[in-house]
Amino acid sequence: MIPREKHDRMANAIRFLSMDAVEKAKSGHPGLPMGAADIATVLFTRFMTFDPKSPDWPNRDRFVLSAGHGSMLIYSLLYLLGYEDITLEEIKNFRQLGYKTAGHPEYGHAAGIETTTGPLGQGLANAVGMAIAERKLADEFGSDLMDHHTYVLAGDGCLMEGISQEAIALAGHLKLNKLIVFWDDNDISIDGAISLSDSTDQVTRFEASGWNTISIDGHDPDAIAEAIERAKTSDRPTMIACKTTIGYGAPTKAGTAKAHGSPLGAEEIEGVRAKLDWPHEAFDVPSDVLDCWRLAGLRSTKERKAWEEKVEQADAGQRAAFVRRMSGELPGGFDSAIDEYKKKLAEDKPTVATRKASEAALNVINGVVPETLGGSADLTGSNNTKTEHTPAITPDDFSGRYIHYGIREHGMAAAMNGIALHGGLIPYSGGFLIFSDYCRPSIRLAALMGIRVIHVLTHDSIGLGEDGPTHQPVEHLASLRAMPNLLVFRPADATETAECWQLALESEARPSGIALTRQNLPAVRTSYIEENMCAFGAYDIAPASDADVTIFASGSEVEIALEAREKIEAAGHTTRVVSVPSFELFEEQTEEYKEAILGNSPVKVAIEAGVRQGWDRFIGNDGIFVGMSSFGASAPYKELYGHFGITADAAFEAVEAKLESLAGDAA
Amino acid sequence: MIPREKHDRMANAIRFLSMDAVEKAKSGHPGLPMGAADIATVLFTRFMTFDPKSPDWPNRDRFVLSAGHGSMLIYSLLYLLGYEDITLEEIKNFRQLGYKTAGHPEYGHAAGIETTTGPLGQGLANAVGMAIAERKLADEFGSDLMDHHTYVLAGDGCLMEGISQEAIALAGHLKLNKLIVFWDDNDISIDGAISLSDSTDQVTRFEASGWNTISIDGHDPDAIAEAIERAKTSDRPTMIACKTTIGYGAPTKAGTAKAHGSPLGAEEIEGVRAKLDWPHEAFDVPSDVLDCWRLAGLRSTKERKAWEEKVEQADAGQRAAFVRRMSGELPGGFDSAIDEYKKKLAEDKPTVATRKASEAALNVINGVVPETLGGSADLTGSNNTKTEHTPAITPDDFSGRYIHYGIREHGMAAAMNGIALHGGLIPYSGGFLIFSDYCRPSIRLAALMGIRVIHVLTHDSIGLGEDGPTHQPVEHLASLRAMPNLLVFRPADATETAECWQLALESEARPSGIALTRQNLPAVRTSYIEENMCAFGAYDIAPASDADVTIFASGSEVEIALEAREKIEAAGHTTRVVSVPSFELFEEQTEEYKEAILGNSPVKVAIEAGVRQGWDRFIGNDGIFVGMSSFGASAPYKELYGHFGITADAAFEAVEAKLESLAGDAA
Repeated sequence: MIPREKHDRMANAIRFLSMDAVEKAKSGHPGLPMGAADIATVLFTRFMTFDPKSPDWPNRDRFVLSAGHGSMLIYSLLYLLGYEDITLEEIKNFRQLGYKTAGHPEYGHAAGIETTTGPLGQGLANAVGMAIAERKLADEFGSDLMDHHTYVLAGDGCLMEGISQEAIALAGHLKLNKLIVFWDDNDISIDGAISLSDSTDQVTRFEASGWNTISIDGHDPDAIAEAIERAKTSDRPTMIACKTTIGYGAPTKAGTAKAHGSPLGAEEIEGVRAKLDWPHEAFDVPSDVLDCWRLAGLRSTKERKAWEEKVEQADAGQRAAFVRRMSGELPGGFDSAIDEYKKKLAEDKPTVATRKASEAALNVINGVVPETLGGSADLTGSNNTKTEHTPAITPDDFSGRYIHYGIREHGMAAAMNGIALHGGLIPYSGGFLIFSDYCRPSIRLAALMGIRVIHVLTHDSIGLGEDGPTHQPVEHLASLRAMPNLLVFRPADATETAECWQLALESEARPSGIALTRQNLPAVRTSYIEENMCAFGAYDIAPASDADVTIFASGSEVEIALEAREKIEAAGHTTRVVSVPSFELFEEQTEEYKEAILGNSPVKVAIEAGVRQGWDRFIGNDGIFVGMSSFGASAPYKELYGHFGITADAAFEAVEAKLESLAGDAA
Repeated sequence: MIPREKHDRMANAIRFLSMDAVEKAKSGHPGLPMGAADIATVLFTRFMTFDPKSPDWPNRDRFVLSAGHGSMLIYSLLYLLGYEDITLEEIKNFRQLGYKTAGHPEYGHAAGIETTTGPLGQGLANAVGMAIAERKLADEFGSDLMDHHTYVLAGDGCLMEGISQEAIALAGHLKLNKLIVFWDDNDISIDGAISLSDSTDQVTRFEASGWNTISIDGHDPDAIAEAIERAKTSDRPTMIACKTTIGYGAPTKAGTAKAHGSPLGAEEIEGVRAKLDWPHEAFDVPSDVLDCWRLAGLRSTKERKAWEEKVEQADAGQRAAFVRRMSGELPGGFDSAIDEYKKKLAEDKPTVATRKASEAALNVINGVVPETLGGSADLTGSNNTKTEHTPAITPDDFSGRYIHYGIREHGMAAAMNGIALHGGLIPYSGGFLIFSDYCRPSIRLAALMGIRVIHVLTHDSIGLGEDGPTHQPVEHLASLRAMPNLLVFRPADATETAECWQLALESEARPSGIALTRQNLPAVRTSYIEENMCAFGAYDIAPASDADVTIFASGSEVEIALEAREKIEAAGHTTRVVSVPSFELFEEQTEEYKEAILGNSPVKVAIEAGVRQGWDRFIGNDGIFVGMSSFGASAPYKELYGHFGITADAAFEAVEAKLESLAGDAA
């Protein structure tokens, strides 16, 4: 047991570092770190297993600050515990350019930051994914290699966001009993008292989702410790409702919204120093307190070493598999399996919907890549994400490799982020492209963090037909392509689908979205090419030198482009077709390659059953675009393509008109 | 009381119409209409007030099919009740091109469809908005003019989506006791049994959010009726958990996922006819049953007429205000108030953040437009959406004009849709631009429906500074501009902000998003112009004929463009600056206007602190873009602008380089 006075001084070190850093930065959120300092102190000095000298230790406990605005809590902890990345210099330069101590905690900036948080509710849902990963790996590799807890600190904002419901329902359903959430119940949000906008009984709400709950005074170290002890024995995930005071210690601002998101000000800060008996300068942590913290930082060294011995003692094959899996490296045999499969496709030339082609590719992939963990937001039969290798995980059996995420796109995407962040697994899952909107904040965070999650996005245009405009994406390809660091793939046939899957899996530091059709498509790649052509982002699928016309198209519209080409060539104009499976990869090619692909055809056309935005890059602002400029409609898909003029005939006519007008100009 | 046999036959009429229409369309969802037919029959024949001959009657009860895939339930009801828009011909052409009976119910296609649903959870949250609107208007105009219920049919999918939590928490908090939700508790989702993915105790969950709950057999008409009676007496919103059988009546598929989303097939359909004793042809509703339904369609005629009399008898001013408000027409005095305000701005030339300028504009608007209903997702002080005219609504007092929506962007946006759909109010609300991602599905539905909701989206770029990349939108302008039928505004100063507000309010059939800065901006419109220049979408803010260089910019970057212009002109090159507050309105101008704005400058530049996507329309794919190509960073904003090269110097240098290269080419 840590004596109360010592605890208080350790917790106060967090409070003052946080408060002083915010003051110096002239912006930030002092209230949460001051209010949650007791919880964090108990957790990190008595329970968490971690090792600042080996921060990536795979079996460490995970801590997620879901209420990411309280970033100074993490930075204070990391500094105090002795993580090298976060020095006092870093803390003094909180929120400044070039420092690791960003406004909100960012994964990759410093060891010990397990995920990027700030957008509320995301961290909680990430943690659900981490707990899933832990349990899955424990099932696979045994508790000697994998056996840790995942802790979350969530605020009222996290719990008000809808994603929290998806996350807690999923965690409760899967009985993730090593997930422990502290709710920082401080009754305050930015606008003022929580009672301005909420009356939810959060404890009952969590219980309704199958959680164990415990309610405590969040400033009582013994109560906190006892609650964690109890939580660790539960067969369900636990939510510990911690009644706290935001800005604890601030004489006039504690317990008010004024402590939430602004510096406290010199006068108030003096008041805190007096009130908490902390007669030290800003950023000055007394050596006795720092020593205690640094000692706490060494707590799990022995445990970590013991774990490393267990790894050494493990079966050689098991050990090698575990090490490879945690490193993120794909298994040998992956490339050759894809290559064999591409050869078969070149022979079979299947006419198939790309969502089905994706299933076939997954059948190959899941056979050779044991770390894939599939799923769908209740569209398994439509997304075709489940293969023979991926039986479903159930609450009582994690030997499966597939998660029925339920109708929870947002929770799913955020959990996938957590699974990827945990390591050892590659999460992929399915939804309709239209519903990428439901989980866009999580896709964005995956892109910002640079992690490998793969979203299978089927029913990717008006080609889905009768479900109508509520289900027909028209702007989604553009809006996803607008996002930095996200790979958006739109393959045109089974071969391109296999290549895109290969690229997505190989993209260790980027998330991918693979847009796939509901409707059948013919093979457009009819001969075997060893090289992954989709890796170029755009490539000649029907080459021609000095082409009068170049048609760029993606996915289901490559077929239309090839048809249009025949018509245009029949009318005497050399025509080239470029398949564009990925804008992002195209932009990464050499300038020479890009210029060659863009070419010099007097007439340039793009065909895509989506909006024009983005295609001007290929066709210029005077190019011909054959696509959508409005929402879709409800009808059989072939009628819709006709209705919206996305046909080879329409492309042909537009090209003819343009060629005539150019001839007129020249005459 | 309706005898049981009669009830059954009436409910079966829904079942068979739905089943047969799905069969004929070869796609659709028979399971829900068959399972919920009893609920719908009791509701529409005994409780709902509505009038097929006067479907827009403002005081009608609202019915929202949140589980929109069950669209045939609504179409069957509307046909049976005698709504003119939905004929038998329409039902026979379910999901076909040019018919009103789209795959999912679409607002505007037919009277009686109160909102577009299909994306799950949206309808439930729309209904919360409708109930808010009802209560607000009842407070304002009295219960003689406004006193109705809002009913919702929600499925498991609606309740699994996170938006449902935001909606029910808000409804429970505001004590919306005239909101009654039927939960179609059929234990089935697309993937199979609900138990595959969910273990939530929904009744307890709703109770935790302050709801009244009742659990019944959803096939027992008397239990349904009794539950509705009880619900209507509650002082809280009510959730009626109705245990139902999906595909009720189908001999082998009832109660299974097979009844959910595909035609039942000829054999099964024969089985249903035998089981439910319905020896009629497809689409043949026996006249006695149709007569009963048509009679039910007349139930509220008297009530509607009595209400019209009350309107006639109301105080003339009150009546005129009510009629105007429900018509959606803006009050006289609005334009002149904006005009006066613009004159004042031209004199004052304030240097101010556009979020503050928006507050000042709202101060003018809220004074003359009593139907605005403001709000924020817990960022009131940051979004600046609250003015002196808009005290907050509280659970017990709806005299206010402002809603503390809580940290619930998605629920807020969907509720705003419901408020707008209800009529009588113009909802606007606030969030950070980055969090438009959290509510994108609802913004999209507003665009699809063509309704007037206004999203104030502040902190619109890296200009927000220290909060860092999790809070800095870079792709959001592009991704919102990609969406059809949404007006995206990005004003450059206080005058443009006022003009954009005017345009947003005047856009009766389109939603708007107004992107606003956190940081201060100088006045760039320094003299009074009566015309609303932003209505052109793009216009010369610094004209020049035969300009060597044209710079296009929006929002905070117009200032930078003007600075760059000075530098470029100083170097001897005529330079023109175009402010681009709205891409969408620009595209609606005449070809001549657009050509003139795009112009023929040899060098074209666009400056926006976001991604390039979309700007090629203005500058061509060889133009100079000064903006972002990655996520942002955490630092004071001026440093960030320097760091990311979004400065007048950077623009100047790029222009110089380009001019030199052009001169080189020409030489």
